[in-house]
Amino acid sequence: MSGRTGRRPGQSTTRDEIVAAARESFAKRGYDGTSLRAVAASAGVDPALVRRFFGSKEGLLVAALTATLSPGERLAEVMSHDLDSLGEQIIGHVLSVWEKPASRDVLIGMIRSACTNARAARLLRDFFAGQVLARLASALDDDEALLRASLVGSQIVGLAFYRYVLKVEPLASASAETLRAIFGPILQRSLTGPIDLPKRKKSG
Amino acid sequence: MSGRTGRRPGQSTTRDEIVAAARESFAKRGYDGTSLRAVAASAGVDPALVRRFFGSKEGLLVAALTATLSPGERLAEVMSHDLDSLGEQIIGHVLSVWEKPASRDVLIGMIRSACTNARAARLLRDFFAGQVLARLASALDDDEALLRASLVGSQIVGLAFYRYVLKVEPLASASAETLRAIFGPILQRSLTGPIDLPKRKKSG
Repeated sequence: MSGRTGRRPGQSTTRDEIVAAARESFAKRGYDGTSLRAVAASAGVDPALVRRFFGSKEGLLVAALTATLSPGERLAEVMSHDLDSLGEQIIGHVLSVWEKPASRDVLIGMIRSACTNARAARLLRDFFAGQVLARLASALDDDEALLRASLVGSQIVGLAFYRYVLKVEPLASASAETLRAIFGPILQRSLTGPIDLPKRKKSG
Repeated sequence: MSGRTGRRPGQSTTRDEIVAAARESFAKRGYDGTSLRAVAASAGVDPALVRRFFGSKEGLLVAALTATLSPGERLAEVMSHDLDSLGEQIIGHVLSVWEKPASRDVLIGMIRSACTNARAARLLRDFFAGQVLARLASALDDDEALLRASLVGSQIVGLAFYRYVLKVEPLASASAETLRAIFGPILQRSLTGPIDLPKRKKSG
């Protein structure tokens, strides 16, 4: 068990162990079925330590999501490329996460949790809005940047739902290569293509 | 209560009452929380009658979905228009269903059920594949018709999930008019736009 995730030598391996246990629990048992106490037991530490590191189950979920998606690093990498290849970069990164069963299971667990638990849905929404969509939008020089980022988010969630939850063919068993070829241009268009909104009232 | 749905005079109002009760139960309590017996009680009929009409809870779900989405009539209507306006037609019809709270609640209940119950997911998948995607694909004169239809399906499910389950802004509170303007062209492109797949092996 020890050192399974050990990416940052010298920095709290215990924390990493707890996050690994949390990811596993969220993946297997969802948000409702996960408790701070059980995660502590599975990581072999005292619940008080988990509480000290993460505050609450909500904190654990955010830590598990962050460890799974590394939104900061990933988006920095994605956004280091040309704006014209953003769609391709994003679907490439998304698929690289999904291709790892451990990460995929965490994400499916999160989708499932959001379906059944309003608090999990809110956490997931805040995580995506703050950690993913806002950063992605900041890369776009566009009045509708946030709408475009959300559009991309909805398309990715839709694909995940179709492929992994509903398992609708042919998307369920399409190769990563095929998905990349299809979704690269779709996402690119959503990000930088023409968008023709009805006459807007600038509200909010 | 009586005659609430009565659209087809002379044809089994009792059946309609049962379907109305089933829709309400699936919307409120999801697949797991719905029983044939409770639906019978709520419609004021004997469970044996429900079983005679629908066979099982699965049959009830398919009947509830069919009544909510009327895929046959709706797709016939959608497909009576020019192929170039299919995207616009589809998002228009989807939104007209979602704008009715009773229908929307059934659909959200279905999405939630699919998340937590593999049998509900399978029923939903088979319903969409057989009743919706196959018909839509048949309207497209294209080698990748089914892939294109699935693509549209995934985008619609993604929008529903983002808007109604996660409630991510700005999609959560965008007007139907805005969604129509955005998704019309996106769906149209998925249906009839260029699609550049990697060199395929024609399998299956």
